[in-house]
Amino acid sequence: MPPPEHAGLVRQLDSVFDPHSVAVVGASSIPGKWGFGVFSRLLLSHATRQLYPVNRQAAEVLGVKAYPDIEAIPGPVDLVVIAVPPPAVPQVMRECARKGVRGAVIITAGFGETGNEGKRLEDEVLAIARDAGIRFLGPNCMGHFSTSTDLYTFGAAEGIRSGSIACVSQSGNFGGYMLRRGDQMGVGFSKFVSTGNEADLHFEDYVEYLAADDETKVITGYVEGLREPRRFFTLARDVTRRKPIVLIKVGRTSEGAKAAWSHTAALSGEDAVYDAALRQCGVIRVDEVDEMFDVAIALIGQPRPKGRRVGILTGGGGFGVVATDACVKLGLEVPPLLPETMETLSSRLPERWSHANPVDMVGTNDMSYFCLGTLLKAENIDAVLGVSCVGYPGDVDLDGLDLPGMEDIRRQVSFMVEAEKGLVDGLLERMWRYGKPLILAHSPGGENAPAVLKLKERDVFVYPSPERAARVLSRLVQYGEYLAGD
Amino acid sequence: MPPPEHAGLVRQLDSVFDPHSVAVVGASSIPGKWGFGVFSRLLLSHATRQLYPVNRQAAEVLGVKAYPDIEAIPGPVDLVVIAVPPPAVPQVMRECARKGVRGAVIITAGFGETGNEGKRLEDEVLAIARDAGIRFLGPNCMGHFSTSTDLYTFGAAEGIRSGSIACVSQSGNFGGYMLRRGDQMGVGFSKFVSTGNEADLHFEDYVEYLAADDETKVITGYVEGLREPRRFFTLARDVTRRKPIVLIKVGRTSEGAKAAWSHTAALSGEDAVYDAALRQCGVIRVDEVDEMFDVAIALIGQPRPKGRRVGILTGGGGFGVVATDACVKLGLEVPPLLPETMETLSSRLPERWSHANPVDMVGTNDMSYFCLGTLLKAENIDAVLGVSCVGYPGDVDLDGLDLPGMEDIRRQVSFMVEAEKGLVDGLLERMWRYGKPLILAHSPGGENAPAVLKLKERDVFVYPSPERAARVLSRLVQYGEYLAGD
Repeated sequence: MPPPEHAGLVRQLDSVFDPHSVAVVGASSIPGKWGFGVFSRLLLSHATRQLYPVNRQAAEVLGVKAYPDIEAIPGPVDLVVIAVPPPAVPQVMRECARKGVRGAVIITAGFGETGNEGKRLEDEVLAIARDAGIRFLGPNCMGHFSTSTDLYTFGAAEGIRSGSIACVSQSGNFGGYMLRRGDQMGVGFSKFVSTGNEADLHFEDYVEYLAADDETKVITGYVEGLREPRRFFTLARDVTRRKPIVLIKVGRTSEGAKAAWSHTAALSGEDAVYDAALRQCGVIRVDEVDEMFDVAIALIGQPRPKGRRVGILTGGGGFGVVATDACVKLGLEVPPLLPETMETLSSRLPERWSHANPVDMVGTNDMSYFCLGTLLKAENIDAVLGVSCVGYPGDVDLDGLDLPGMEDIRRQVSFMVEAEKGLVDGLLERMWRYGKPLILAHSPGGENAPAVLKLKERDVFVYPSPERAARVLSRLVQYGEYLAGD
Repeated sequence: MPPPEHAGLVRQLDSVFDPHSVAVVGASSIPGKWGFGVFSRLLLSHATRQLYPVNRQAAEVLGVKAYPDIEAIPGPVDLVVIAVPPPAVPQVMRECARKGVRGAVIITAGFGETGNEGKRLEDEVLAIARDAGIRFLGPNCMGHFSTSTDLYTFGAAEGIRSGSIACVSQSGNFGGYMLRRGDQMGVGFSKFVSTGNEADLHFEDYVEYLAADDETKVITGYVEGLREPRRFFTLARDVTRRKPIVLIKVGRTSEGAKAAWSHTAALSGEDAVYDAALRQCGVIRVDEVDEMFDVAIALIGQPRPKGRRVGILTGGGGFGVVATDACVKLGLEVPPLLPETMETLSSRLPERWSHANPVDMVGTNDMSYFCLGTLLKAENIDAVLGVSCVGYPGDVDLDGLDLPGMEDIRRQVSFMVEAEKGLVDGLLERMWRYGKPLILAHSPGGENAPAVLKLKERDVFVYPSPERAARVLSRLVQYGEYLAGD
């Protein structure tokens, strides 16, 4: 049973992520305006939710009856999205208070980020909201969404897939960038927040809420500076025990960052402290967006490693060298194979196989699943890295050559493809049975091989390069070691 | 005038990359065989070149009259590709010697890489070739190609684009991987070699040849171990003054590498020496394939930076933080703006622009080209990094909404796209006039924006993330500093 404040926060944020009714103050029929983007996106929702445009000039907005102010709305209003100029916001918040609104999203910029005058206005809005028990996102934010409740106040969220990764961003632009990049990588999202100035709700509040959210399995985010670092580290230490947090942390604080960057020493000093603190509370800190999602995806679809000893399988010698180099550079170990592992592999591989870790199958890629399974079983191996060994391509292109044997080739390819797909589930059964991660990298162009797509359906992402796969594995090992410690 | 040995090497390798006639020993009509892959690929060439299949069993191969051995071929033969079992290779080489063949590509594996017996056979083949003045690639290699002469003995080279990047790989598999990955990235290649066991021609020979090759502007490669490290470093120190070399260097030596990887200490010791030596002779050492081509592309399309002071332009604040962080981490500097730069920017940007480096245009992306040009001109800036500031998308998707204003929006978008394309050449003129690199990163999905494609046509690649762009810039700076030194 969480403490009452926590229960309160969850209830309050539930209204923000799943309101029964939403009003958009500043809703507009004019494309290009924020109030158009937000209201048109809300209209696309399939949820049965009351939507009220609020606009002093218009009788209707995008075909929906509009109201001159919040209090003129006939029914109750849970959530209000505010996209009107800064000086009008306190008055809107007062109306929200009288109407009994639960939460708000203040898109409007021109508050604390612009200086003292803006800060004063922001404090005024905050005081009104606090008095009325209204929690709000922003100001100066780009909105939020929840896929399960089909609620989007974030305009640029077209085509977002539903999934179990949540994302909280202290930059709206960069948040949009992360979402689009994640989408390209096939990531599915549960919830997203652009936190803006965090006048009321802080980064820490969203993390606390998402920690309790059943739809979120991994929390990702972009952090410039924490308002409540102590609270964050205490919270994270608790949360990461059961739900991983993967963060990009840049700069220091919103204000101090720009000055600090000019002299590296200041940055690295402060940064080293952050780095150590994040590590101590089990937060996985990454450098780039691709890596953030690479790791988040693996955390969803993979067991946690119990150590850092990696078994490597490759279709050819060069990949073994690259993969080994990448693993060792990242502090992973590539131990010698046990005699029984050697024996099992030798029973099926041609004599010229490498007889060592990395295991080079010397091109016998039909043995991949057997070899991966054998490595997963090996007692001295904690995780398996497979490079260019799965994903028989489903299409054969001989570049215009029309040969008598082409039909035979096509039939053979089709047989290989089906045979490989048949092996996927057995391999994943072994992965879970032995409780060891299986990180795979495909060949260029291999991302659409039928077996690769089937693995992806099973939440096992096949990475685009051996180095990226090794980096993911090193993050999983770091997290596994954290979980094993204390 | 190069020394005679060099002239000899160039003449010899000219026969390998542009032979008038090619024989394939082991040519086959059976798909799946090496002799099929090589001969069918050669048949697809548009070059007017005599092609002779050699096959003891067949009267013709893929519709071309076959010969039982090399000497039975009526005309002269410049290049012979050998894809028959190892024991047959010495005899084939003897035939080549008698026929007056100039060069050979020995695809066949099972020589030095398999142990003493294989080494003896390899030495025998080498002795025959040396006596006859025949130079050869391999054995145990995957072939080579030259796009300008439309010659391909590398079977997996479908759809390779012609361009000015050469690639030499000490792993055939990894070579194929690099080619496919490069192709996905839009790289055009001049020449490629899979070096195999390097019994005769060494990695060093290919570098020396490519240094003199007018079609090659950048030499890239994958190195496991050098046969003639001293020769390589002397050669590289000379070559990199006029033609950049970008290498992935893994492991130590082919033989020693596997043992060494088990204990990191040995690896890092040796590796540090290599690292320092490569740096001293101006070789750009990279870790990954994507980075190798990222850098190679920039070396083709960009001036060399004269210092490490970077001006950053972004469409939104978050990107500025990420880009600054990435630059500073890589040892680049982000200096304060000069008063005149501030003044020029303020003359056109809205008042809330960041008034600092990184320059945040606060969303006024129509000012991008003006701002990039201003930064290129600034006296205290050596290179410009632009993030999410070019590439107005050519397509508008409002996700099914059909609104009265849509026609207006489409017209407006089309106008913006054309206006931006009109600015590209002026920007690049400034880039070359001031002699400063301009490294750009697009937003996700921005890779197909019309202006991005136009930049690419002008050899200015727009990178997929700010971190990748910053990394490329740091490599250019490293190379620029090398060129400025000595």
